[in-house]
Amino acid sequence: MPARFFDAPDQTVAQMLEGLARTRPLRVTAADSDVRAVVRRDLDPGKVAVVSGGGSGHEPAHAGLVGEGLLAAAVCGEFFASPTVEAVLGVVREVTGPGGCLLVVKNYTGDRLNFGLAAERARGEGLAVEVVVVADDVALPDNPQPRGLAGTVLVHKVAGHLAREGADLATVAARAREVATAVATLSLSLTSALLPGQDGERRTAELGLGIHNEPGAREIEPSGAADAVDLVLGPLLEVVDARHGSDVPLVALLNDTGGCSTQELAVLATDLLRSLGDRCRLLVGPAALMTSVDMRGFSVSLLPYDDDLAAALTSAVEPADWSAAHPVAGAETFSPRRSTEPDWGAGPRDEAVAAGLRAAMIALLEARDRLDDLDARVGDGDAGSTIAGGANAVLGALDDDRLSTGDRAGLARELAAVLEQRMGGSSGVVVSILLTAAAAAWDDAGADVADGLREGLSAVARHGDAEVGGRTMVDALAPAVDALGEGPDAAAQAARRGADGTAEVTTTGVGRSAYLREDVLRGVVDPGAEAVALALGAWADTLRAG
Amino acid sequence: MPARFFDAPDQTVAQMLEGLARTRPLRVTAADSDVRAVVRRDLDPGKVAVVSGGGSGHEPAHAGLVGEGLLAAAVCGEFFASPTVEAVLGVVREVTGPGGCLLVVKNYTGDRLNFGLAAERARGEGLAVEVVVVADDVALPDNPQPRGLAGTVLVHKVAGHLAREGADLATVAARAREVATAVATLSLSLTSALLPGQDGERRTAELGLGIHNEPGAREIEPSGAADAVDLVLGPLLEVVDARHGSDVPLVALLNDTGGCSTQELAVLATDLLRSLGDRCRLLVGPAALMTSVDMRGFSVSLLPYDDDLAAALTSAVEPADWSAAHPVAGAETFSPRRSTEPDWGAGPRDEAVAAGLRAAMIALLEARDRLDDLDARVGDGDAGSTIAGGANAVLGALDDDRLSTGDRAGLARELAAVLEQRMGGSSGVVVSILLTAAAAAWDDAGADVADGLREGLSAVARHGDAEVGGRTMVDALAPAVDALGEGPDAAAQAARRGADGTAEVTTTGVGRSAYLREDVLRGVVDPGAEAVALALGAWADTLRAG
Repeated sequence: MPARFFDAPDQTVAQMLEGLARTRPLRVTAADSDVRAVVRRDLDPGKVAVVSGGGSGHEPAHAGLVGEGLLAAAVCGEFFASPTVEAVLGVVREVTGPGGCLLVVKNYTGDRLNFGLAAERARGEGLAVEVVVVADDVALPDNPQPRGLAGTVLVHKVAGHLAREGADLATVAARAREVATAVATLSLSLTSALLPGQDGERRTAELGLGIHNEPGAREIEPSGAADAVDLVLGPLLEVVDARHGSDVPLVALLNDTGGCSTQELAVLATDLLRSLGDRCRLLVGPAALMTSVDMRGFSVSLLPYDDDLAAALTSAVEPADWSAAHPVAGAETFSPRRSTEPDWGAGPRDEAVAAGLRAAMIALLEARDRLDDLDARVGDGDAGSTIAGGANAVLGALDDDRLSTGDRAGLARELAAVLEQRMGGSSGVVVSILLTAAAAAWDDAGADVADGLREGLSAVARHGDAEVGGRTMVDALAPAVDALGEGPDAAAQAARRGADGTAEVTTTGVGRSAYLREDVLRGVVDPGAEAVALALGAWADTLRAG
Repeated sequence: MPARFFDAPDQTVAQMLEGLARTRPLRVTAADSDVRAVVRRDLDPGKVAVVSGGGSGHEPAHAGLVGEGLLAAAVCGEFFASPTVEAVLGVVREVTGPGGCLLVVKNYTGDRLNFGLAAERARGEGLAVEVVVVADDVALPDNPQPRGLAGTVLVHKVAGHLAREGADLATVAARAREVATAVATLSLSLTSALLPGQDGERRTAELGLGIHNEPGAREIEPSGAADAVDLVLGPLLEVVDARHGSDVPLVALLNDTGGCSTQELAVLATDLLRSLGDRCRLLVGPAALMTSVDMRGFSVSLLPYDDDLAAALTSAVEPADWSAAHPVAGAETFSPRRSTEPDWGAGPRDEAVAAGLRAAMIALLEARDRLDDLDARVGDGDAGSTIAGGANAVLGALDDDRLSTGDRAGLARELAAVLEQRMGGSSGVVVSILLTAAAAAWDDAGADVADGLREGLSAVARHGDAEVGGRTMVDALAPAVDALGEGPDAAAQAARRGADGTAEVTTTGVGRSAYLREDVLRGVVDPGAEAVALALGAWADTLRAG
């Protein structure tokens, strides 16, 4: 079984371009062409065509960045292999009008020479072509031939922006060259990459990698995300500060080299912003822009901030793979308004209600072990304990005289608050939903006890999908509410019948019983329904005795 | 050494939100709040606030989708854990104005109950709140409680679009409910996820997973990307066709569950488009929208296409994490115009030039082993063979009378074509660049032999960074060109001196020698420079003899 989602590796490049061409306003080279490239459909020949490319394996660079406001075309070699001179030249011919063409090339010998010869030959054919080379890697400070890394996409973006604005070739090339000269990049990975079709060991953490999976400048052992960011920023800022001064404000690009999760990128971005402090004015990404297949790593690119650069980097473009550039600011915070406590016991008292409620809670406390046992046969065995927690909390509130027993709506809201905070588990939330919705109904003058409880049951059905026949407390509650008009005894008896009936319910789609087999459920009363029957029974006894 | 970029796992949620709040127009809950949430800064209280949330670990859902045209706020629990009722309620209070609030909730008991109770309590406080539950999973067709998966983000997008358009709460909720009811999703992974701080074995390939890393419905062994897509589409289309008919056109969402490389996503997208054929009218993604941390897998969501839906899904939004929705069409193809062959031998002949060229090529053939030996001491030992390949090709063209020996520019172009196609390696391209640029200069009437060659050298410097002192063929060529005014012998002698001088060049920044130690280079003549000296010497001998 393959470890990754590829088909025949030699088809991967063509496959990737096919999907792009079917979903974006692009043209793709025909299947029988030996060139792999995409070009925009809607090119304005009077404007500069910004063309990039190189080996594949760096997606979305470069084909994913072709579109309005960014690249005019991308010429794609096989994975990590430069496209041929003929391929580059063919695409240059395809996109170059009177506005001319800018080739953005990463500093690798193959790309330099092949794009370079294509440019010379295109000029020989009368086309206006400029070449800008990006060499942003600072992994080896004395290397006279730094590699082209993720900083390249910033050059694309600035050039694409100016081209769209109608700048002429000399202007676009000059500005692209400025950005290419200014940007510095350093990358770090936890694991090296594997090409499509490859299967083997991955190297471990390294600092200072290129984009072709070559070993990094040195092996490292970062202790976490923040440490990894600092390992990159140390040498990177040394170069940047030496070039531009240690107080120059910065644009930062946080690039995923292919294997980071969205969560890791978000953490890395925050660590980067914290480490750069006030110097970072604009953040591009975090996003996968220049990848090395699935290398689990990131690179940081830095260059001096100015308003023109920011405008060029933040303007909207068509390709979905370009990530937004975000101005950086301090976080604006808020504290959500907390719920106020109910106005405990603000309403009148009703001794009969208080007595009924107390009896009901005591009945639940006494049934604790039995309810736990019932639950253990069909669930995790804590129903009795959970319910007892709620019952104790209600008894405490009664003892403290905090309950408005003579005001239905007030009492319901007070009980909802007690149970939400103290009962635990999902049952506390379910009963709170019931009481909260009932209280809202009782606030309307017209709603009687049963009306309010029906509204509560309806809310439970809405949010908890608990309806009659589902082996839940609703199986006891619903018939009790319906029988309430005939008096408390009738209601308690209806609850008892409903609870007993749950022993025969063996298929259900909700709650603890939804995933159990029929033979496990048969004969077992639902502990929630049993609790309701017990509580109402005790309440009714009290009323009768009173 | 950690395998992933995280810091303290219990800080991850707060860290992720901090970065968002510093780079987007959002407010984030204060550090001392026990609520983790982000809300838009620029809310219009008259419009519906679309709020989502749930456990974290699904980024960019939900916090990354907060912004203009999408969510008004996201309430974030810990990884895979529902936020509390108080957290949801606090955020609802924060964002709900006269326009009301729509809570989009995935169908998990914790989320259902906590968002549900928050909604009931918010209503009790006089706020207009509606809840829409998404239950798009079709992994277990008979499950009465399907899980909420990636289809949720389509509900967000449609609701966010309508809210921005000014639709009222009832309309937004109704349409969101329609989308939630219509969308069906199935997911597949090659590996399960690990939470921040977790370290252990990952499960292997499964079909029909939720988003909380629970085991899938069954283990599978896909043979590749296309097979994986078909494993998902089989059961998914069965459900979709049964619900909507087998000819209904579709919107598809291809969602990365967190661990796919951009290359795999591009391949999967193409496989998906191929398998769905004409039915797929709109593709959202491929993109990571609803992830399970770093699960290497994907999900496909399908729902019937209509123009209103397409308009809602394709409208631009502010959050960079939303991926574009792309109309699907057939690929438009092109075939780059191939270079025409040079008009071989169309120009006049010059017997002396032909004789000189022939002698030079023969000298290079004779020196093959010596040049290979020189190269073996500083490189990969094939310089002589590569150069011999070029020399043989030139001799063949001479024998076939295909060279315009009496026309400098024509001859240079013919030789450039021969060497580009037949010499191999980078040297063939370098010489072609030199000859192509020289030919272009010679096309200008004013350029003499030396002027043209200087233009050629300048192009080589531009594209290959090869300048005098770099241990390349330029070390022989450049002095020869400078001496050309004094005659061929002077030029040949200058080339010889230049070549011999390369033995003393021990630091260089270009070509094969750039990465070698000083003691390796000392005393070794550069094979490219030696070849130039040999060739010019033989040519000069011929001229003298002639």
